[in-house]
Parts: sequence; structure tokens; C-alpha cells
Amino acid sequence: MLAERVLTGDIRAAAQLMRDIDDDAQGATAHLKHLYPHTGHAHIIGLTGAPGAGKSTLMDGMVHHLRRQGKTVGVLAIDPTSPYSGGAILGDRVRLQRHADDGGVFIKSIATRGHVGGLSRSAFGIATVMDAMGKDVILVETVGAGQDEVDIIHLAHTTIVVITADMGDGIQAVKSGILETADIFALNKADMEGAEIALNEIKMMLSMQQARKSNWAPPVIKTLALRNQGVDELLRRAQDHWNFLKTDGLKDYQKHKMHTEFMIHFRRHLMEQSLSALEHGRKWRETMDSIARYDIDPCSAAEALVHALLKK
Amino acid sequence: MLAERVLTGDIRAAAQLMRDIDDDAQGATAHLKHLYPHTGHAHIIGLTGAPGAGKSTLMDGMVHHLRRQGKTVGVLAIDPTSPYSGGAILGDRVRLQRHADDGGVFIKSIATRGHVGGLSRSAFGIATVMDAMGKDVILVETVGAGQDEVDIIHLAHTTIVVITADMGDGIQAVKSGILETADIFALNKADMEGAEIALNEIKMMLSMQQARKSNWAPPVIKTLALRNQGVDELLRRAQDHWNFLKTDGLKDYQKHKMHTEFMIHFRRHLMEQSLSALEHGRKWRETMDSIARYDIDPCSAAEALVHALLKK
Repeated sequence: MLAERVLTGDIRAAAQLMRDIDDDAQGATAHLKHLYPHTGHAHIIGLTGAPGAGKSTLMDGMVHHLRRQGKTVGVLAIDPTSPYSGGAILGDRVRLQRHADDGGVFIKSIATRGHVGGLSRSAFGIATVMDAMGKDVILVETVGAGQDEVDIIHLAHTTIVVITADMGDGIQAVKSGILETADIFALNKADMEGAEIALNEIKMMLSMQQARKSNWAPPVIKTLALRNQGVDELLRRAQDHWNFLKTDGLKDYQKHKMHTEFMIHFRRHLMEQSLSALEHGRKWRETMDSIARYDIDPCSAAEALVHALLKK
Repeated sequence: MLAERVLTGDIRAAAQLMRDIDDDAQGATAHLKHLYPHTGHAHIIGLTGAPGAGKSTLMDGMVHHLRRQGKTVGVLAIDPTSPYSGGAILGDRVRLQRHADDGGVFIKSIATRGHVGGLSRSAFGIATVMDAMGKDVILVETVGAGQDEVDIIHLAHTTIVVITADMGDGIQAVKSGILETADIFALNKADMEGAEIALNEIKMMLSMQQARKSNWAPPVIKTLALRNQGVDELLRRAQDHWNFLKTDGLKDYQKHKMHTEFMIHFRRHLMEQSLSALEHGRKWRETMDSIARYDIDPCSAAEALVHALLKK
């Protein structure tokens, strides 16, 4: 059984199971169910920020440092690609390939497939496999926009938000809603003009924030990922946050994460079962035709079909 | 009745209905149903691109030009804000306020509320109201990441993707999946270093694209929104695309849009009805407790609850 083989350290089995999860292959869920009781060991660190902020380069540096500390690492890179292209584009991920021969590093890329919840379902599933493999640290890279990616942020114990000075003024940072989700800020490309101003802006905005969800005050770390500067400091702070969480809020995190994961599966299963029930019936085609002919508006049509599906 | 008043040109009624739609107030759906038959007049233009690309400034220039052409305009600005803050942040929208005293312009901002489909439901609903108000052109601004915003892209007849030269190389553009959704590219901040290179890169990537969904070849227009350069050209091309669509694909667009809108309402209504049925039962609390205690994994729990909900 695939799940058993993952637990004995079989890397090919793990890779196969991750592909199955991402492809939503039959049986993948059964394996995941088997792995759940063997998880909870890994420190899951999320890296989020706009495309071009340097997340991949930073992650590459973090992998390098973690390996020198003797820690095993899982890397999950999430591409905010088009719903049309259907596959992860490697792009700057190529850099990460230098770790490909290192048995202590496992790298997996996934991409949006254009259906709600697909990305977060894959991400939670793959993180479960990496955790069950015994990885010490799991790095998850996302752009962090949209509901799917907001869900993925709940996957991480520690969320590092990567920003750069050229991303516009503070309002842009607030606009993208990153302030509340960050446990740590990495101000990357710290040799860029305006970096000090950006640093102070972020610090000021953090100080203006009123109610924090916890006693943790998010530090702002300057990094220069391309020259490997600040990466050790970033990892130290991530470790600090992990220690903080273990004494202060791990139970809450776990409850929240499990609830998010439940909702991902619930939403998806409910939609799948409902659509499969509908598409086999005559009602579906009739309704679609009526909508196209303007005979019924899309709100009323949706209400009628939901009513026909649910018990009671 | 609110919907009747919207149809007679009552601006306060329109504003109230839009608030109701965005707040998901009781009765809002009934008004929308009333308005649907009075829609289909407006040319809906989407502006999408990363935060900081200059979408708001460009939109401001477009409003100015459209008004000089005597056209009435609806503006729908979608903020990719945090699921925590719960309100639109005006930020650089302040600029748009110069049109606030112009009766021919209606501006509405909405923001993510953290529930799947909420943003797109609001956007489609508000566009329906603006269309029923008789607006000639509706401009919709989004960041265009995540399922919700991908849905919103289906709202627009013409999608303008706003990029800048400093957003990194071509791979970043492909990564964010914007190539397939664009009917027109606006290369904004065209006086920026590297603009010519970026222009050629985009053109090259477009020429490499194999199967287009239609016979329309997306033009790339250089703009300098802050100095109002290229905005007239951009609008001309948008009008060209609208004319193209009217002879070539409006029926397909309409079918696709209605299906998207149906799915938004269906997903949302199904989830709401299901969760409301569940949360009133004992099963829900028991299941949540079991998950938190690791007695059942989140996949199995979701399957069991869905099974309990659906007919047959």
C-alpha cells in the first residue's frame, strides 16, 4: 500500500502519492486518511508575496541553511498560473534543482487548475505526505491572493511575507491584506533604493495595528536573497515563532487548521456530489437552456436546483 | 420598490441596492431578478494586473475620456484586501473622486470578505445594477488572482491586462496566467527603463501562443497613465474589440457569462443551505470535536456530512 511505503521512507511512493493527490486520482484520499495519525511533527513555514518579490530565491537560501543545520526539508511551490494552462511553470524554480540530488530535500510544484478549492486541497494533502515522511521543516510558497490561497496560509505555522521596496507605498501593502497574516516580514532586495523608507513604513504600520491576534510582534528582517544575506536571521526568527507557538497557541493553530482542511474537503465533496447528481438529470440541461434564453435568471435557477438536491 | 426606482434613474436607489447586494442583505436577490431583463446594453471592460501596475490611474484617465465622448460610465473597483479587515480601502481611489460630482459617473468599491464566491457574487450583481441604470461603459478593476477573480474576468466583454516593465521578465507574466485572459495589453509606465524590452517580450510571447480562442489578436498599447498618454488609443482598441465581439462572439460570451453567474449563485446557495442545515444539528459539533481530537480525519468527516445532506 502506497501510504505504508511512505511511512517506511520510500521516496518514490511519496512522489507517486503526491501526484495522485494533485491529479485527484481515485484512492488518494484513502491513503491520506491513513497518513493523518502520523503527522504533526513538521514546522510548516509559508512564504507569501507578490510575483517577482524573490520568494523562490529566498526559499532556495532557506533550504541551503536548513540542510547545513542537518534538518530535512519539504518544499511546496504553488504557482498562481492560469486556469487554462493546467500545469506548473518551473521558471525561477530551476534554481531549486541544485537540491534535487540531496535526499534530505523533497521539492513539489503545483498549479491552479481553475476549480475552486483544488489548489488548497492539493496543498494540504501534499503537506500531510511531507509531514508523514518525517520532514523537519516544510516550506510553502504562495502568492497569497484569492480564497484558495488564503486557505493555504492557514496551513502554515509561521507565515513569512516577502515584500520589496519597489512594490509601491504602504497602502499597497495594506491593500493586499498582508499585514494581518504576517508572523514575520522579509524586506527582500534590501540593497534597492528606498529600502530604508519601506522598512520604516512597514514598522510604522505594524505599530499602528491595534489588536494583534496574539502576543507575537512580527519582526521585519532585511534580506538580499540573491547574495544569501539575512537568510540565517530569517530562519532564526521563524524558529523563535515556532517556539512561541509551542508554548502559546499550537492547540488553537491545530484546531483552526483542521477546520480549514475539513471545509476544503466539505466544499469540494458537496459540489462534486451535487453536480454529478445534477448533470445526470434532465433538469440540468433544461435549466442551462432557460438561462441562455433569458427565460429564468441565474439566481432563481440556482435556488431551484439547490432545493431539488438537499434533503428535507 | 428599489429595482423599479433604479430603472427610472434613481441614483440613491441604485447606491442602496448595490450596498444591499454587497452586504448580502435580505431581498437583494429579488431586486436583481427584476433587473436582469433590463440588462445587456453596457460594454463591460475589465482592467486586471498586479497591485501597483497603475490600474486605478489608468481607469481614472479612461473615465475622463469616456465622459468627453458623452458616454455614461460605471466604475467597479475590487480591492484584494484581507479577509480580516472587511472593507474596501480607498487608497489611490481618492483620485477617482474628482468624478464624484459628475452625474454621468457612478463609482463603487468592494472588497473581499473572506468567503468563497462573495466577491464575484457582489461584482456580477453590481454590474447588473449599473447595466440596468443604462451606463454605456462599465469599468471593472481587479488584481485577477484566485478563483473569485478569475470568475470576475468572465464578467468583462473586453479584458485589458495592465503590466509594467519592472514586474520582472516574461516568465512572471506567464506565471500569473494573464496571457490567455487578455484581449488588450496596456504596458503602463511606458517611460520606465526597460519598457521597450518588455514590449517586445510580450509581443514575442503572444506570437508564440498557438491556439487563440478567437480571431482577435491582442494588441499591446503603451500607456503613461499619470500623464494621460495612450489612454485614447486604449479606448479605441477596446471599442474595436467590442465591435469585433458584436459580429463574432457575443452569443458565446453571453452564454459563458450566464453560466459563470449561475455557478456563483449555485455554489454559494448550496454551501449556505448545507451549512445552515448542519449547524443546527448535533452532528456538526460532534464532528468538529472528533476532528480536533484526531478521532476522525477531515476527509472522512466531510464525506460523511455530505452524505447525510444530499437526497438519495
